[in-house]
Amino acid sequence: MTHKVAILGASGYTGAELVRLIATHPAMEIAALAANSKAGQSMGQVFPHLRYLALPDLVTIEEINFADIDLCFCALPHKTSQEVIKALPRDLRIVDLSADFRLRDPAAYQKWYGNVHAASELQKEAVYGLTEFYREEIISARLVAGTGCNSATGLYMLRPLIAAGAIDPDEIVLDLKCGVSGAGRSLKENLLHAELSEGYHAYSVGGTHRHLGEFDQELSAVAGRPVEIQFTPHLVPANRGILATGYVRGDARAVYDTLSAAYADEPFVVVLPMGETPSTRHVRGSNFCHIGVVADRRAGRTIVIGALDNLTKGSSGQALQNANLMLSLPETEGLLLAPVFP
Amino acid sequence: MTHKVAILGASGYTGAELVRLIATHPAMEIAALAANSKAGQSMGQVFPHLRYLALPDLVTIEEINFADIDLCFCALPHKTSQEVIKALPRDLRIVDLSADFRLRDPAAYQKWYGNVHAASELQKEAVYGLTEFYREEIISARLVAGTGCNSATGLYMLRPLIAAGAIDPDEIVLDLKCGVSGAGRSLKENLLHAELSEGYHAYSVGGTHRHLGEFDQELSAVAGRPVEIQFTPHLVPANRGILATGYVRGDARAVYDTLSAAYADEPFVVVLPMGETPSTRHVRGSNFCHIGVVADRRAGRTIVIGALDNLTKGSSGQALQNANLMLSLPETEGLLLAPVFP
Amino acid sequence: MTHKVAILGASGYTGAELVRLIATHPAMEIAALAANSKAGQSMGQVFPHLRYLALPDLVTIEEINFADIDLCFCALPHKTSQEVIKALPRDLRIVDLSADFRLRDPAAYQKWYGNVHAASELQKEAVYGLTEFYREEIISARLVAGTGCNSATGLYMLRPLIAAGAIDPDEIVLDLKCGVSGAGRSLKENLLHAELSEGYHAYSVGGTHRHLGEFDQELSAVAGRPVEIQFTPHLVPANRGILATGYVRGDARAVYDTLSAAYADEPFVVVLPMGETPSTRHVRGSNFCHIGVVADRRAGRTIVIGALDNLTKGSSGQALQNANLMLSLPETEGLLLAPVFP
Amino acid sequence: MTHKVAILGASGYTGAELVRLIATHPAMEIAALAANSKAGQSMGQVFPHLRYLALPDLVTIEEINFADIDLCFCALPHKTSQEVIKALPRDLRIVDLSADFRLRDPAAYQKWYGNVHAASELQKEAVYGLTEFYREEIISARLVAGTGCNSATGLYMLRPLIAAGAIDPDEIVLDLKCGVSGAGRSLKENLLHAELSEGYHAYSVGGTHRHLGEFDQELSAVAGRPVEIQFTPHLVPANRGILATGYVRGDARAVYDTLSAAYADEPFVVVLPMGETPSTRHVRGSNFCHIGVVADRRAGRTIVIGALDNLTKGSSGQALQNANLMLSLPETEGLLLAPVFP
Repeated sequence: MTHKVAILGASGYTGAELVRLIATHPAMEIAALAANSKAGQSMGQVFPHLRYLALPDLVTIEEINFADIDLCFCALPHKTSQEVIKALPRDLRIVDLSADFRLRDPAAYQKWYGNVHAASELQKEAVYGLTEFYREEIISARLVAGTGCNSATGLYMLRPLIAAGAIDPDEIVLDLKCGVSGAGRSLKENLLHAELSEGYHAYSVGGTHRHLGEFDQELSAVAGRPVEIQFTPHLVPANRGILATGYVRGDARAVYDTLSAAYADEPFVVVLPMGETPSTRHVRGSNFCHIGVVADRRAGRTIVIGALDNLTKGSSGQALQNANLMLSLPETEGLLLAPVFP
Repeated sequence: MTHKVAILGASGYTGAELVRLIATHPAMEIAALAANSKAGQSMGQVFPHLRYLALPDLVTIEEINFADIDLCFCALPHKTSQEVIKALPRDLRIVDLSADFRLRDPAAYQKWYGNVHAASELQKEAVYGLTEFYREEIISARLVAGTGCNSATGLYMLRPLIAAGAIDPDEIVLDLKCGVSGAGRSLKENLLHAELSEGYHAYSVGGTHRHLGEFDQELSAVAGRPVEIQFTPHLVPANRGILATGYVRGDARAVYDTLSAAYADEPFVVVLPMGETPSTRHVRGSNFCHIGVVADRRAGRTIVIGALDNLTKGSSGQALQNANLMLSLPETEGLLLAPVFP
Repeated sequence: MTHKVAILGASGYTGAELVRLIATHPAMEIAALAANSKAGQSMGQVFPHLRYLALPDLVTIEEINFADIDLCFCALPHKTSQEVIKALPRDLRIVDLSADFRLRDPAAYQKWYGNVHAASELQKEAVYGLTEFYREEIISARLVAGTGCNSATGLYMLRPLIAAGAIDPDEIVLDLKCGVSGAGRSLKENLLHAELSEGYHAYSVGGTHRHLGEFDQELSAVAGRPVEIQFTPHLVPANRGILATGYVRGDARAVYDTLSAAYADEPFVVVLPMGETPSTRHVRGSNFCHIGVVADRRAGRTIVIGALDNLTKGSSGQALQNANLMLSLPETEGLLLAPVFP
Repeated sequence: MTHKVAILGASGYTGAELVRLIATHPAMEIAALAANSKAGQSMGQVFPHLRYLALPDLVTIEEINFADIDLCFCALPHKTSQEVIKALPRDLRIVDLSADFRLRDPAAYQKWYGNVHAASELQKEAVYGLTEFYREEIISARLVAGTGCNSATGLYMLRPLIAAGAIDPDEIVLDLKCGVSGAGRSLKENLLHAELSEGYHAYSVGGTHRHLGEFDQELSAVAGRPVEIQFTPHLVPANRGILATGYVRGDARAVYDTLSAAYADEPFVVVLPMGETPSTRHVRGSNFCHIGVVADRRAGRTIVIGALDNLTKGSSGQALQNANLMLSLPETEGLLLAPVFP
């Protein structure tokens, strides 16, 4: 049986990545593609790499008959997403890729995003989409909130360690390096090739990046008390990829054993042999997350490094993984594409 | 039914690309991987992006029991390939990705490659692997010679035009730009990141590139008389991709109609709407070849531009397409992966 | 004696490049910097790499007292430039980096740029800024029109050959590859890093690129009859650099000797030894142009390849070279910076 | 007066960078260039971007008459350098760019480099080349040991803070991102463009990078007791640049004031306004080091970020700055080239 899906916000990178993945999914059919600013165009005009696919033309959201849709992906910008989802049928299953439903607490949302949430009643309903930790809730969820790509990377590294008490939750530094596609297809001077190529820099330094809202929420919940990590993202001249280097306090072997046990049965999260460290190039274009653990020269200090593709495991791949669960499909369906290297 | 395949030369980029593609192929199983210099290692050690796959460890060619193998991919270096294939069982179906069996004429081989062919009796048997033009021969072939990646790009653009008499075969300029993976994983100073990034240059200028042997052979055959094109390859700072710009004499509309007709039923070769031109980024990681046609401002002159991924359609994807035919599988099996963008 | 210069349009890449070059010029002082949209900001805010220099803050053009200025660089957008220059004092010496005064014929201007020229009386006065060929006129000029960066590259390769009758002017193909900074700091989707990195494509195919207006004007003038070349630019994923591959009809040795003689005494245009070809990486950040000549395998056909840095020799370096002449300074002053490699 | 200098190891990137910088130095002349493996070639053959300079051909070290040399730059590989320098005249002034004389303690040298030092008597004599902190010793030194490029970056950030007691020396995390030219022109698989482009990874994780020997030596000396930082370098796909993100314990304002005071009179080390952070692109090709300070959201924690060009301020620029001091020339002579952006 084929499930019909719609993608709202199909003209952005996460929309295109959803189409790329669903293109070889055996049990999903793209029944509608919406992008209000480009309605009327074909997907092949907006993304010529998808021109070979038989896809519906882009329409406005209003033109979609959601009665025909089994599941809807929302790849819309933040703030827009909450307004659109609020107006969608209340029985429509939705995977949202925006930041709008990641934070359950309206006050936390307002603190990090600066506005009062337009659909705060749905915030409570939404399930946080970090599949490996919310699997049961996602299976029965109506609305799943895709995680931040940085948050996903860091949470895969840190969540089991805090849950197990393997590290000191007050002494966590997470230094993250991400490729430029995470910023989307928006026209900003600092995203131009001439500005970015051959250079790199930190941004949102000092604990101001919005993904900290997710870290605070998730790590505090699992610790049972407030946890605030130090987090600095950096932009590097590459299109895809997140590499996060975590500096934690805890015994390296205990850290390694905790992570190995946590992901032993997971198809997509791979803990490398002790002492090996990951590279973004080895997960590019795939739904895998690689995690490595190394002991520091000073006892009691450990380095944990995680890598994933921000557009796949960090966003659209995660969304598809969650959609599979919501539609009672095998979780890995359509997601076992090999990484693309070189 | 699953067909068992072996890959000889699995530690190079085309070997890794074969594994990437076969990883989601429903009717092929990798039964043996050989790489003499890295025998004993796992594929995941040599190519960590493939570590999640259950693959046989690398062995020497001598260790493989070819009686169990339905088809063998040879991704070995030039010259090595002819010696290895000469020693393989004579009933083993082989797709060779090297240059060793592309030229049917031993004298032409010696001219372009500088040595006497070690298996000249097999040269005659080998079928040139440009699938769309040798499909029938490939179906019944025992030994298929994968084409040069540059040759494939240019031949898709030029062959139908010469066959149809739509252009002057004596006035063809082919200016080609390729990414660095075409040079393989070899340790050469000019392939270092610090040498290549942010710079570009021509090489093998003046008609000295070996792929001209294939152009001469194939275009002369279809023209029924000697054809020599002008051909200059350039190395650009990208990992994958070939973009070839052809300057031909002929009416643009006739050129366009000829190409459109030639590829109307082909699943992988796409002629873009008249006036549109391709980009390597829209075929990256896929088995598609895009071709565009534009009229020059001077009547009777036309620009034809082709783009493909050198590792996929230009090499390992083509090899898999040919293997599908040889094994009576659907030609597109395992090859409909979407391009990866961005 | 120090000459006071102003730069109008200082917030673009060519403006910043002018500042970079003048920073170590012993006889020039930057007395005013204008950028209407960023007036009030410091140059270090707009271009942090220049923050260490003691520079005047950005002002509007109207705020500059041109009576204090010895020479004015206009690095403004096309069309804006003609309007601004029209309103400047008639005795102010000006080097314009825009396209506005490159074409002497108002009809040609209108054909290529689509609008009636707003200062057509100045078109006649302006000297075409290809220093090596207009040196005498530039020395005494009031208004010098900087050339297109693509045009400069091609004209260095072709002009002496046509002047000497060494090649057939009707059979010239110029296939050009340029880095992205040539498109300026404008916010366009196709200039984003995520769009450009790892991909390349042709644009303005078929004889539609505006720089053809300059080729037509200059090559026809030197040939004494109409000359129309075939010209295709390509965008490659690099920030700086132009590499142009020319396919010409003429004896390779005669081509080589003609070019060698033409540039024997030039400080910046270097003809490489016969058979060697240039790379953009060897001229990056410098005012040099490298030219190589190779014979094709078919007699009577020759490949000429030129390389320069679009922002330096193709634009701001050329402008400074011309300014030196206009101010009776040594032509190479401030311009002998070594290329930056790697 | 012009000082004659020799460069040993001129065929590597730091050798080429020295030539680039000295090319516009008004008081230095390159009298000899040595590169044993390429002796007999011209510098233009080895580095075509330097072909326009009138330089002596490459010779073997043995061929140089050091009596004619005022100062010698050694840009040789580690271990080779100590053997060569041991054999040079004892009154020759030398700036060594290798790691061989950075560590004063023979035991520390052996611990980090694995071999007994071949010239341990010279270890004591050598002055650590971090100009801003060893200026007086360098002026009168015979042998100056250039610092590691990573060490220089980190020491600029940390040394004044530890000296002033502004941060806790036991709680320092230094997460560093560097471009590929730091690894030199050596033929290693992991330095190939196809391996590096579009990917990034950590290396020497866990406190094993040799530059830690310098951190330990210098920071312990200034603290008056052992200091061991946590340090993880990462390789990013860029040719030049180091960006180091430091996580320290101390009041942000105190950290800022300490650094501002330390570098108030320095020509090359620039402390950005409080809250601003640096980018490698703004120091590329220059001798500047930019440092930024930001308060973390958690009181008492501060982020310090430093950026420099590993080939210039991190190596050859530093070497020239030290040579200027040793030759009683103005310290900034030849080093005020503007950064190259874009």
